[in-house]
Amino acid sequence: MDSDWMNKPSLFRERVREGKWRKSTNGICPGFVQANLVIIPKEYALDFTIFCYRNPKPCPILEILDAGDPIIKEIAKDADVRTDIPMYRIYRDGELIGEKENILEYWQEDLVTYLIGCSYTFEEALVRGGVPVKNYQNKRDPGVYISSINCRTSGVFSGPMVVTMRPIPANLISRAVQITALFPKAHGAPINIGDPRSIGIYDLNKIDFGEVTEIEEGEVPVFWACGVTPQLVAMHSKLPFMITHKPCHMFVSDLTINELMLTSN
Amino acid sequence: MDSDWMNKPSLFRERVREGKWRKSTNGICPGFVQANLVIIPKEYALDFTIFCYRNPKPCPILEILDAGDPIIKEIAKDADVRTDIPMYRIYRDGELIGEKENILEYWQEDLVTYLIGCSYTFEEALVRGGVPVKNYQNKRDPGVYISSINCRTSGVFSGPMVVTMRPIPANLISRAVQITALFPKAHGAPINIGDPRSIGIYDLNKIDFGEVTEIEEGEVPVFWACGVTPQLVAMHSKLPFMITHKPCHMFVSDLTINELMLTSN
Repeated sequence: MDSDWMNKPSLFRERVREGKWRKSTNGICPGFVQANLVIIPKEYALDFTIFCYRNPKPCPILEILDAGDPIIKEIAKDADVRTDIPMYRIYRDGELIGEKENILEYWQEDLVTYLIGCSYTFEEALVRGGVPVKNYQNKRDPGVYISSINCRTSGVFSGPMVVTMRPIPANLISRAVQITALFPKAHGAPINIGDPRSIGIYDLNKIDFGEVTEIEEGEVPVFWACGVTPQLVAMHSKLPFMITHKPCHMFVSDLTINELMLTSN
Repeated sequence: MDSDWMNKPSLFRERVREGKWRKSTNGICPGFVQANLVIIPKEYALDFTIFCYRNPKPCPILEILDAGDPIIKEIAKDADVRTDIPMYRIYRDGELIGEKENILEYWQEDLVTYLIGCSYTFEEALVRGGVPVKNYQNKRDPGVYISSINCRTSGVFSGPMVVTMRPIPANLISRAVQITALFPKAHGAPINIGDPRSIGIYDLNKIDFGEVTEIEEGEVPVFWACGVTPQLVAMHSKLPFMITHKPCHMFVSDLTINELMLTSN
C-alpha cells in the first residue's frame, strides 16, 4: 500500500524538504496538480511575464511570487520554493552549471519565481476519462520535441515552442481534446493532431527530451504545448542567472485537478 | 443580393410548397438548422425510436411527430412535412421506387415522422469559428462513407454507421472538436480523427455518397457520424414502406444554430 506521503502533498513536500525524495514526481499524489518552476532575476521578469501572457498554451501561469519571496501563497500552504522541489537546475548565461537538492545558497532578493502548469495534470484527467495514455500508465515521460512553431516574443525572450506527443486511438481523440480543453492551466487542448511535419517534426523517434512512445495500429500522434518551453526560451536568451526544477522533478501543489478545471487565471 | 426567401426559413418553405425550389438546400438560410427526414409506419416506430436513442451520434432526433400528424410542432411554425421539403424519396421493401416533389398522395394515418440533425449546422459553426470547411465553402457535399462501425441494434434496425469526412488543418482540429461538441443534436464531436483504416475506410477516393474532397498538405481526415445512417439502416431492414428526403434536400427549420448549441434533447 502506498504511504500517506505519496498521496498527501504537504507530507510529500516535507519528505522532499528532509532530503528523502530526489526522484521524479511522476505518479506522486494522484489527483493533485504539479507545477514547473522557473526562477529569474527581476530585471527580466516583466518581459518574461509578458512572454507567458502571450504564449498561454506552453506557459500557463499558476502563480508568480514577488521578488525575493520564496513562499508560495496560492497553490500550496507552507511551501518554500527553495527546498520543496526534489531537484533543481542552476543556469548561468544560459548554460547548465549544476543540479542541486535545494537552492538556499543561491537565493537572492531580486529573484522572481514562476510556477507553471504541467501536463501530468491532464494525463491523469485523460486516463480517468477513459482515454489511454501509455506513457502515464507505464510511469514514463512522453516524447518531448522542439517544434518549428515560433512563440510570440517579448523582450529577450523568443524561441520555438516545445511540445509533447502522446499516441491516442483515433476514436478517442475527440474525447481527449474535450478533456484537455477543460484545463487551460495545464496546456489545454492539443496544438496539432496527426500531422507532425507541419510543426517541423519529421521523425517521431528523434526526441529532444523525455522518452519515445511508439505509435501503434489505430493510434494517431497528438501534440500538446509543453511547460519545458519557458525554460528553453530562457536558456536561449542567455539570462545571466536562472533556476528551474530538473525535468520531471516537479513542485507538488495542494490544488486538486478538479479545482484547476476551467480555471483560466 | 440574395432574396428574402433565401434567408428566412418560413419564406423558403413557402417557395418549396409552391413548387419553386427543387434543389439542394446547401447554403440556404444561413444560421438556421436543417434536418434529415425519415417517415416510417407506426409498427416499426418503437424500434426505430430506440435505435435513434441508442445511436445518438448518427441519429440525433430534433423532433418526432405523432402517427398521422404531418405538422411540425417544435422546430418550425406552420410547416407540413408532406410539402415543405424540396424532394422526397419513396421506398418499398427497402428499394427506392421513386422521387417525388411532395408526398400528399402517400400520406397515411399510421406514418410517424422523424426530423434528425444534420451536419450543415456544424459546418457553418466551424467556418464562423475560423475552421475552414472546404466542401461547405465551395457549396459542395462532403465525402460520405459507409464505415465498419456497427450501430447498436434495435429490433429490425441494424447496420453500419455512415460517416462524413472533412479534411481539417492539423492545428485546427482541437478547435473543430470543441465547436462540433457544442452541437450534440448535429452529430457532435468527430468519431474518428486521422485513422480511416480503423473504421474500415481504405481509400478516401472511394465515396459511397456525396463528393470527394481532396486532402491537402497539412490536413488530416476527420470523420463525423452522418444522418444518412438511419435511412440506410431502414433500407437494409427492408421496411415495407419508408419516405425520406432526397439527400441534401433538407427540411429548413426555424431553429437558429445558436439555439441548438448544447441542446441535448
